[in-house]
Amino acid sequence: MTVRTRAELAEVPGVASDRDAATRDFVFNHTMLRVKDPRASLDFYTRVLGFTLARKVDFEQAGFSLYFLVLVDAAAALPDADEARREWLAQQRGVLELTHNHGTEAQEGPVYHDGNSEPRGFGHICVSVPDIRAACARFEALAVPFQKRLSDGSMKSIAFIKDPDGYWVEIIQPAPLD
Amino acid sequence: MTVRTRAELAEVPGVASDRDAATRDFVFNHTMLRVKDPRASLDFYTRVLGFTLARKVDFEQAGFSLYFLVLVDAAAALPDADEARREWLAQQRGVLELTHNHGTEAQEGPVYHDGNSEPRGFGHICVSVPDIRAACARFEALAVPFQKRLSDGSMKSIAFIKDPDGYWVEIIQPAPLD
Repeated sequence: MTVRTRAELAEVPGVASDRDAATRDFVFNHTMLRVKDPRASLDFYTRVLGFTLARKVDFEQAGFSLYFLVLVDAAAALPDADEARREWLAQQRGVLELTHNHGTEAQEGPVYHDGNSEPRGFGHICVSVPDIRAACARFEALAVPFQKRLSDGSMKSIAFIKDPDGYWVEIIQPAPLD
Repeated sequence: MTVRTRAELAEVPGVASDRDAATRDFVFNHTMLRVKDPRASLDFYTRVLGFTLARKVDFEQAGFSLYFLVLVDAAAALPDADEARREWLAQQRGVLELTHNHGTEAQEGPVYHDGNSEPRGFGHICVSVPDIRAACARFEALAVPFQKRLSDGSMKSIAFIKDPDGYWVEIIQPAPLD
């Protein structure tokens, strides 16, 4: 495994030499995943992972709904009025948007593709936790399916669980495991 | 279009009534996309969108490299030492991880699936900008391909550009467009 110093990172082919001032205040705001059944997904993301449902918008005529979730310790920071919440949300990093096309929840079997078999593309989202062993023990107790347990494979410091659509959620811990 | 008050959001089916204290300090850390050619992707994400390459890890024997990018106004906050940078990165929201399987850059044509045609799943990532009209004019000047211009379709306040692999990047602005 080879890592790079900060000075070396600036020399990696393709990396721009200076940040364009026109990109100031740009924010990597959200990632959107389609979900079959919002009830199952909301249960998973709120109960299992601690997200807060911050906004829901229904487009009845077009037949879809959007759910915006945030994983913040001060959910009280969310403004009350919908328009103020929309603006607040648009300024955050790390928002998860779930799209529900009405009716998919009644279909048999999986509806969406997790991106990790052909055709591949999207790989996973990742949640960082303070204590990965405690988090994984809790996921086991909650009967959450694992794609990779801490003990599987050669990378013993990361795990992957699966959301109700089968999307992979990597679990990491900032501090090294002792 | 129907929106919900904060009180109504708590009643949406599936939403957990109380956040489990065991999820305290969980962070929605990153989203991973596979890319064909890191040189093209790094150029797009650093030069066009203002991301900083914060970490690169090469797994030579396994034949892949990981690139971690952040979109922060104070790139100087990044720790110098790689291990300290790894820990810092793992505590951030809104990290973009790009996976390069060595050799794909030499393949003809597109290598990865953007998730928006069958089989669908992942939809897009989103970057929020202070001035969407100025941002879109700059993308045009930089010859960035658009999936949807501000003027296309019925939603005149959002745009979608495409990264070098064809992944959709939604562009939004927090404040309402006048």
